[in-house]
Amino acid sequence: MAPTAKQPIYILNGPNLNMLGTREPEIYGHETLADLEAAARTRAASHGLELVFRQSNHEGELVAWIQEARTEAVALILNAGAYTHTSVAILDALKSLSIPSIELHLSNIHRRESFRSHSYVSFGVTGIIAGFGPRGYDLAVDAAAGMIG
Amino acid sequence: MAPTAKQPIYILNGPNLNMLGTREPEIYGHETLADLEAAARTRAASHGLELVFRQSNHEGELVAWIQEARTEAVALILNAGAYTHTSVAILDALKSLSIPSIELHLSNIHRRESFRSHSYVSFGVTGIIAGFGPRGYDLAVDAAAGMIG
Amino acid sequence: MAPTAKQPIYILNGPNLNMLGTREPEIYGHETLADLEAAARTRAASHGLELVFRQSNHEGELVAWIQEARTEAVALILNAGAYTHTSVAILDALKSLSIPSIELHLSNIHRRESFRSHSYVSFGVTGIIAGFGPRGYDLAVDAAAGMIG
Amino acid sequence: MAPTAKQPIYILNGPNLNMLGTREPEIYGHETLADLEAAARTRAASHGLELVFRQSNHEGELVAWIQEARTEAVALILNAGAYTHTSVAILDALKSLSIPSIELHLSNIHRRESFRSHSYVSFGVTGIIAGFGPRGYDLAVDAAAGMIG
Amino acid sequence: MAPTAKQPIYILNGPNLNMLGTREPEIYGHETLADLEAAARTRAASHGLELVFRQSNHEGELVAWIQEARTEAVALILNAGAYTHTSVAILDALKSLSIPSIELHLSNIHRRESFRSHSYVSFGVTGIIAGFGPRGYDLAVDAAAGMIG
Amino acid sequence: MAPTAKQPIYILNGPNLNMLGTREPEIYGHETLADLEAAARTRAASHGLELVFRQSNHEGELVAWIQEARTEAVALILNAGAYTHTSVAILDALKSLSIPSIELHLSNIHRRESFRSHSYVSFGVTGIIAGFGPRGYDLAVDAAAGMIG
Amino acid sequence: MAPTAKQPIYILNGPNLNMLGTREPEIYGHETLADLEAAARTRAASHGLELVFRQSNHEGELVAWIQEARTEAVALILNAGAYTHTSVAILDALKSLSIPSIELHLSNIHRRESFRSHSYVSFGVTGIIAGFGPRGYDLAVDAAAGMIG
Amino acid sequence: MAPTAKQPIYILNGPNLNMLGTREPEIYGHETLADLEAAARTRAASHGLELVFRQSNHEGELVAWIQEARTEAVALILNAGAYTHTSVAILDALKSLSIPSIELHLSNIHRRESFRSHSYVSFGVTGIIAGFGPRGYDLAVDAAAGMIG
Amino acid sequence: MAPTAKQPIYILNGPNLNMLGTREPEIYGHETLADLEAAARTRAASHGLELVFRQSNHEGELVAWIQEARTEAVALILNAGAYTHTSVAILDALKSLSIPSIELHLSNIHRRESFRSHSYVSFGVTGIIAGFGPRGYDLAVDAAAGMIG
Amino acid sequence: MAPTAKQPIYILNGPNLNMLGTREPEIYGHETLADLEAAARTRAASHGLELVFRQSNHEGELVAWIQEARTEAVALILNAGAYTHTSVAILDALKSLSIPSIELHLSNIHRRESFRSHSYVSFGVTGIIAGFGPRGYDLAVDAAAGMIG
Amino acid sequence: MAPTAKQPIYILNGPNLNMLGTREPEIYGHETLADLEAAARTRAASHGLELVFRQSNHEGELVAWIQEARTEAVALILNAGAYTHTSVAILDALKSLSIPSIELHLSNIHRRESFRSHSYVSFGVTGIIAGFGPRGYDLAVDAAAGMIG
Amino acid sequence: MAPTAKQPIYILNGPNLNMLGTREPEIYGHETLADLEAAARTRAASHGLELVFRQSNHEGELVAWIQEARTEAVALILNAGAYTHTSVAILDALKSLSIPSIELHLSNIHRRESFRSHSYVSFGVTGIIAGFGPRGYDLAVDAAAGMIG
Repeated sequence: MAPTAKQPIYILNGPNLNMLGTREPEIYGHETLADLEAAARTRAASHGLELVFRQSNHEGELVAWIQEARTEAVALILNAGAYTHTSVAILDALKSLSIPSIELHLSNIHRRESFRSHSYVSFGVTGIIAGFGPRGYDLAVDAAAGMIG
Repeated sequence: MAPTAKQPIYILNGPNLNMLGTREPEIYGHETLADLEAAARTRAASHGLELVFRQSNHEGELVAWIQEARTEAVALILNAGAYTHTSVAILDALKSLSIPSIELHLSNIHRRESFRSHSYVSFGVTGIIAGFGPRGYDLAVDAAAGMIG
Repeated sequence: MAPTAKQPIYILNGPNLNMLGTREPEIYGHETLADLEAAARTRAASHGLELVFRQSNHEGELVAWIQEARTEAVALILNAGAYTHTSVAILDALKSLSIPSIELHLSNIHRRESFRSHSYVSFGVTGIIAGFGPRGYDLAVDAAAGMIG
Repeated sequence: MAPTAKQPIYILNGPNLNMLGTREPEIYGHETLADLEAAARTRAASHGLELVFRQSNHEGELVAWIQEARTEAVALILNAGAYTHTSVAILDALKSLSIPSIELHLSNIHRRESFRSHSYVSFGVTGIIAGFGPRGYDLAVDAAAGMIG
Repeated sequence: MAPTAKQPIYILNGPNLNMLGTREPEIYGHETLADLEAAARTRAASHGLELVFRQSNHEGELVAWIQEARTEAVALILNAGAYTHTSVAILDALKSLSIPSIELHLSNIHRRESFRSHSYVSFGVTGIIAGFGPRGYDLAVDAAAGMIG
Repeated sequence: MAPTAKQPIYILNGPNLNMLGTREPEIYGHETLADLEAAARTRAASHGLELVFRQSNHEGELVAWIQEARTEAVALILNAGAYTHTSVAILDALKSLSIPSIELHLSNIHRRESFRSHSYVSFGVTGIIAGFGPRGYDLAVDAAAGMIG
Repeated sequence: MAPTAKQPIYILNGPNLNMLGTREPEIYGHETLADLEAAARTRAASHGLELVFRQSNHEGELVAWIQEARTEAVALILNAGAYTHTSVAILDALKSLSIPSIELHLSNIHRRESFRSHSYVSFGVTGIIAGFGPRGYDLAVDAAAGMIG
Repeated sequence: MAPTAKQPIYILNGPNLNMLGTREPEIYGHETLADLEAAARTRAASHGLELVFRQSNHEGELVAWIQEARTEAVALILNAGAYTHTSVAILDALKSLSIPSIELHLSNIHRRESFRSHSYVSFGVTGIIAGFGPRGYDLAVDAAAGMIG
Repeated sequence: MAPTAKQPIYILNGPNLNMLGTREPEIYGHETLADLEAAARTRAASHGLELVFRQSNHEGELVAWIQEARTEAVALILNAGAYTHTSVAILDALKSLSIPSIELHLSNIHRRESFRSHSYVSFGVTGIIAGFGPRGYDLAVDAAAGMIG
Repeated sequence: MAPTAKQPIYILNGPNLNMLGTREPEIYGHETLADLEAAARTRAASHGLELVFRQSNHEGELVAWIQEARTEAVALILNAGAYTHTSVAILDALKSLSIPSIELHLSNIHRRESFRSHSYVSFGVTGIIAGFGPRGYDLAVDAAAGMIG
Repeated sequence: MAPTAKQPIYILNGPNLNMLGTREPEIYGHETLADLEAAARTRAASHGLELVFRQSNHEGELVAWIQEARTEAVALILNAGAYTHTSVAILDALKSLSIPSIELHLSNIHRRESFRSHSYVSFGVTGIIAGFGPRGYDLAVDAAAGMIG
Repeated sequence: MAPTAKQPIYILNGPNLNMLGTREPEIYGHETLADLEAAARTRAASHGLELVFRQSNHEGELVAWIQEARTEAVALILNAGAYTHTSVAILDALKSLSIPSIELHLSNIHRRESFRSHSYVSFGVTGIIAGFGPRGYDLAVDAAAGMIG
């Protein structure tokens, strides 16, 4: 069954994003994930859209949620955290989607350690937004809204 | 305690194989994992053998099941999906086995993206069967039956 | 002299983007660069901002315009086209900026030839937006507006 | 002219397989190639199929036989031995086939020297069977029979 | 809230370490993880310290426990097993710590397969102890006690 | 608008080819670019064809001329000189062409420094002619004439 | 003894070129090798030259024929097929020649799999012609005639 | 015509050097290019020599000026900036010179990003001076004067 | 002759460790090598053991001392400094030992320049201790005492 | 059957060695293969030994002769020419030998093109002699005689 | 104690520089090291400076002299010869200096074998002078004088 | 002064060869270096030649001895041990020789760890002898005698 306009945007967050506001604030800023969720919900509402907003440290759980998004979501926004660089399983789950998908990063991953420049997620998504800090969530919601409009 | 002839063959399936029949059917075909399980059980029965047939998206759960197979199974068939290419943890679990083990893939992984040509699983198994689609499960059951006969 | 709120956003486009709408439309779509400029001006206006919108096939000219943006612009959006992958000169110019800067691509460069996965531009910008087609210009204008707000 | 059900399966063996039973028995076992041929003929007969079973140390002769299989065989099983790792000529011959083809190895090539992990043959075959010792020939005959059934 | 002297040392063990004493004893020895825990608790007690001692096959669970150690432990000892070589998620969790952290291995990982020479964990810890077998746990407890003394 | 039979062949020459006859004559010979142009015009005339023959040291100018050839030429011959090895911008321009295109080199670039063995131009052209010295221009004109005949 | 004007041009064809017209026609076209030979003989005759035109799947036979060309031919045209990428033996034979030699390919090898971009043959020949399909044989005959004129 | 003693030394400066004093002063210092030119002219005069002192952001223009230096200068000093690392075209121009040539850098390029450690320019010059800041221009003038003395 | 319990532990220190307390104190701390020696002797005495404690800038002298330790020491602790990364000669000397050996580093070498991540010494020692600063000497003495106990 | 003292030494020569005295004499000298054979027979006779001395351009024939040497020779001397660098098939044949084997080269292969520095043959032989020109055959005969004495 | 103006410049020369004038004169020229020392002393005297001028074939001795320069010299000039490319020990010694340091080479090391393009010394010095032959010593003395002026 | 026939052959042995007979006898055998020296002197005497036979663990001392051999020896035999793989300084010394030089190894270095397959020494010697154990010294003396005969 194809997704319908009533369905939410899924925003999935990977490992350590539950530590936001605490971990390496010089890179990731002082806002918590709850702050980001609240702002993103407001933004989605401005487009008349709802959100499913989740975080997991488990690669397998992220895989399952992306599979779920296949039929339950109108679009997927994925900040896969460290799994961006190591998870072919997440890539495979993304490739099974026919809805628009967005890779999101708070930081510009290319200005950090070299192993963070390689992203398996990039091979499976529609678009990429990185480096805008917390505001990147708003941009991603706008972009998703634009693609499903 | 050494495994006995009464013990089953374990067939373990990795991430996204629960999506079989849906995800990228041009690569993986239209049969579901339940279809494959049914066929494999029939095949095993023809050898007088039983199956434990499981799927998980979690690397850690697959590691635990392989550990379990050490004493509970007569042979192991593993379609590790994307973890084939990234999981040293699964390799380490495989290396603790003294029963025969088989790496199984539906597709010929060497004809896809280059990062799929590297398999950690291959370093830890007895034999490899790849590229025969759903029928590979039958071949693997036959091969396992032959090795424990 | 620091840039003032009256100053425009610079949108600079690199080699072959003047061919937009003609060259490889299956990758880049059918809209021309003039179409993109018009849409971006409208978007900027909605933020009360003006644009300088230019295209060049010359690496040296892009370097000069980025230098100019240093004092004449409030933010820089750069779709460097093929120079993304080969130009250290453009990277050096970007590093001299203290205004926000955005790397922009119409396509998801990571799903194309492998030499397009490496970006010198990424080392010098604040944020990255890629893969959203013409709509990426709107997102970039929004992102720029947000950063200078 | 398309192959007919009356046509045999070709089993082609590459360099040094004529030494089987003598060379490095700790890797390849004590059975000779003649033993393997006899067993494979019995297996094929159980499927109502005949075999052409050959061995050559010459890359060029293997190329010619693969070309011959194009019109004379219903399926091809190739244990290319050392040419597995070095022969683009054999790969090119395999790519001209429309019949099913199987890459076969007695040992698990991934557990040996690293240069044996790369196989040009894999890029040109339907399926792969490796690591089951002499019994791999039976499995390959079964797999071939299944694909042409 | 900063950790207090009353807090325990966390000793976290990764995948397959629950198999200790069974798996590849020629590399890892015959003592079980319970043996190691008992010895380590005795050692910690000699420093007036308590331990939290855990094992998991799940990368995500290890990530969560490292996050927990951030506020609940005075020091962290991590034998990440196979995740040492593949987990950026664990590295990211380690980088959020301000308490001392120690990478621990039973074997000298540099004398094994070459892919075991690379450790993401090393980028995130204070110190490294490897190759001393079960006695390494005592050394790590001593080292941790010294750093928090 | 599709090119017509009246349109010329474009022969474009890259950096330092204006120095021909002067620079490293042991590699490039003693004829000047004007000599080559004259000979090529004669050759083209023998096919009833005209030439546009240009040289530039500027990557951006070569890009623009290739774009121009898209609608103004019946075929393109490109001796990109050093940009052969470094210019993705020229490759992108070549990929927008639907007319036949030929990569031309005076010397056999594979017998010189190793960095000259990689050609971005090769990814975008129909055919390649290299190593025949000045006579290569005649061969390229013949080849172009043959492809548009 | 130096070659004389009465001697023929050798055109040598490597593995699988006997399958021309059958194998992967979307890459190599529908003409057979016999068609190419006939056309090349006609072209050579127009220059008052004769041809020796041969094909072999054997690397060793190609080596021997190149050695023979040393004293029996005025020029050598070599389409080494797959041996282009793997044969140092053919390179060594080419290096013993003092007559002009041309590497010839029907397809543009740089637009295919990356392992086809490396050519040992290129290190040993005078010139290279690739990507012009069957007409490449004519161009090579012309080029050879020009070099011995 | 060979250069005469009356001819000037050419000092050519590449991309972004016009920003000197502004861009990344912690690396390049606070003096402007005009300051450097003035100092270098004074230094040259002390040797009885004149200077041509230019800057360009265009690779092609630098190529042309190097070509010009071939007959118009007694020596060449080149601070190629970012083109040092990417321009084979500049290398080719340098190789056509018979006058002494000096590669000059303000900073020690080996202590910066790793991609700045590779210099095409080094393959084409007589000598190299790097890391002495503005005073490097004096040293280069002295070195040039010494070589033409 | 096998070593006896009366024999000392050898602690050998490589190049530049004589500069300890002076060189890069932000990495290596302010204690001198004499301070470390005194502390280590005290620690050894607590185990009833004596030390031979030496430093050399000469690779050959370190090789000779390791050879000497073969018969004169009960255990070897080696802080090879920069030779860690470059000396196969020291590795060869270590491989001739049958006594326990420990690689020691003050800093965590994996958090510094990438060329410091490779250690030849690691291939030849029993265990590794790194990153604990001066206290690492105590830990190494304890580890050595434990292994010879 | 084990080889007996009456059996000959096999000296096998690979591709293009039949051209000796003609091909690249500045590298290989002016003596022919027949000259080398005569000298080697004399040398062998001085040890009371006979020779089988052969040359082939065919990899497969060399493989077969090495297999033959397994039971018919007391020692093997192999100058594999270009197959040294590319033939795993020859390596596999060498590994089946229990008699002494020597890799022989006229030139010092490490002072030529870099691809000649890699030898598969080296992985399968007892000893290596290279760079002594024709006299290397005498040295190899002496070495073989010494190993079977 | 900080160095004083009375202290000399250290010029240290590495392995084989004692052979200057004899070894490979086509690369290094005919002047001996004594000639260079005399000229450099004269040059230093012109700046009112004294020299310590030494040569050693021992890496360890060079390390010790660099350490000595730390307190005894006003500047260091180091022609490390072959140790340039292999010595991390010398790099570590250089990093402990706070006086200006100059890497010096007679030849342009980038125009020789590729392994000479990598310099560990470059990571530790202030500036680099290479390719000016014996006159490079004068330039280095001038540069050193300028930096301590 | 050119070397005279009265001069000795130099046999120089590198690090750890003084441990021969003790270190890793399964690789290097049970004979001591003194045994080898005695045998080599006998062999040299049979050619009417004398030997200088030395061993050093110091790279610098080996460099000096090779320099000395330049005028004092008729030929050089060098078993550089571990410096084979790491010493450019020894290579540079070898390149200054005009007498014949031989690289000697007891073991076949290509059958050991991969870092032992690279030899800097090979780039500087006339010939190579490896894998013949102690008898290799006799072969090297014979080879040297042959080259100076």
